[in-house]
Amino acid sequence: MSVAPHFRKIALIGFGLIGGSIARAAREHVILCIPVGACGAVAQEIAPYLGPGVVVSDVGSVKGAVVRDVAPHLPASAHFVPAHPVAGTEHSGPDSGFAELFINRWCILTPPDGTDPQAVERLRTFWTALGAKVEIMTPDHHDLVLAITSHLPHLIAYTIVGTADELAQVTSSEVIKFSAGGFRDFTRIAASDPTMWRDVFLANKDAVLEMLGTFNEDLSKLTRAIRRNDGEALFEHFSRTRAIRRGIVEIGQDSAAPDFGRPHAQLGKKAD
Amino acid sequence: MSVAPHFRKIALIGFGLIGGSIARAAREHVILCIPVGACGAVAQEIAPYLGPGVVVSDVGSVKGAVVRDVAPHLPASAHFVPAHPVAGTEHSGPDSGFAELFINRWCILTPPDGTDPQAVERLRTFWTALGAKVEIMTPDHHDLVLAITSHLPHLIAYTIVGTADELAQVTSSEVIKFSAGGFRDFTRIAASDPTMWRDVFLANKDAVLEMLGTFNEDLSKLTRAIRRNDGEALFEHFSRTRAIRRGIVEIGQDSAAPDFGRPHAQLGKKAD
Repeated sequence: MSVAPHFRKIALIGFGLIGGSIARAAREHVILCIPVGACGAVAQEIAPYLGPGVVVSDVGSVKGAVVRDVAPHLPASAHFVPAHPVAGTEHSGPDSGFAELFINRWCILTPPDGTDPQAVERLRTFWTALGAKVEIMTPDHHDLVLAITSHLPHLIAYTIVGTADELAQVTSSEVIKFSAGGFRDFTRIAASDPTMWRDVFLANKDAVLEMLGTFNEDLSKLTRAIRRNDGEALFEHFSRTRAIRRGIVEIGQDSAAPDFGRPHAQLGKKAD
Repeated sequence: MSVAPHFRKIALIGFGLIGGSIARAAREHVILCIPVGACGAVAQEIAPYLGPGVVVSDVGSVKGAVVRDVAPHLPASAHFVPAHPVAGTEHSGPDSGFAELFINRWCILTPPDGTDPQAVERLRTFWTALGAKVEIMTPDHHDLVLAITSHLPHLIAYTIVGTADELAQVTSSEVIKFSAGGFRDFTRIAASDPTMWRDVFLANKDAVLEMLGTFNEDLSKLTRAIRRNDGEALFEHFSRTRAIRRGIVEIGQDSAAPDFGRPHAQLGKKAD
């Protein structure tokens, strides 16, 4: 695929999993692929070197804070179109990047009011060429959506993996051996990059705390049902949550194969 | 593989994912493959038909309650060796079963004090022939280990998927579309069988509530770090949890491939 008609030159600033994947998929814009907390300082540093009409973008998981930190540093002649490709793996660093990372994933653009529509169109075409589907929303709405679909899941995974690691009654070795009953699913995202995730929680504090409040209410409700032996309430809740999984598989956002398609027999062979 | 030398006849009672997988792997014991809540009634029903020396086992995710509900109904001439193969997928029913399900997975046996060691040995050989590794522990310790490695992860996954489904600020369609940022991992186990999981939480109430207490304390600690902008505490916590993932992958309990080995490009092709 070629993005040459859309941009003559692309400068990737930050070269980890996302930057490495963009480079492999596009091979030639200023796209900041760095932890959210570093965006302001880097914008200040690159500002004097931005030519007129350049499109500046980023790939951060939080958009309100990025707009706040980056926009004031850029010259009036530059177009700032923040972006967030909702894609990734638990690995980090450029060697973990691969060109297919963005295929059939959504990339969310959050242009501030008054952004040149042509600059937005160029960035949309760029991400479409990389295989992504593009959606446009406000930075604030983006931050709420991602707080529930990404940030809270990570916080909870980080919490439970830490809890399991510190138990007095169950050893870490037992936790690891018997993890196939569900726990291992959480360890994948709890193995994500610590710097990136520290910055995400600090930058999207309000939305994350709001979602955490709702989650805690719901967890208390289920805890009460267990404590009161209310099997009916548990059954009713557990039946509802199946439908969301179906929706995700139907639109191709996850594998329909059982266990995410993990290779059962192969794991066995490896161990024999 | 043949288990014929170990048992002449196997009766599988309950024919879902686990029963179907055992049948495919063994093709010829009384093994109860039914929701934990149904074990007592079924034991009462089959007791009159159990020949002398028969080994009775089960595959339930909770062992204390099963021992309490089943043992009193069985004749003194039967050997009761409770078992729990820590294996499964989000699918249920016999058609979801496959012979490789138990390969390189642990099967925990929890024989009550005074159980005939020969009966335990026979069941160990049976599960080993199906590809599993066998560990022996007390029912109470089993229930604590599984509370953290399986039951709490399921409860939390069921909670957050329910939370996401009921938000006023973010639509279900947005949750589904942007699930690749982490949320979709939770939807897999929140799609597990509602009857089985209702019974698990009711039968293992004490251990689950104990683990929930510790989890809530740890979640409060991280919440406080976010509220106070304590990036150092977040970074330190997020760095520790990586090691557990490494341990799980090293002993072959999960795939080393990024994203559980999900087929990235193939998902893309499917959608094109």
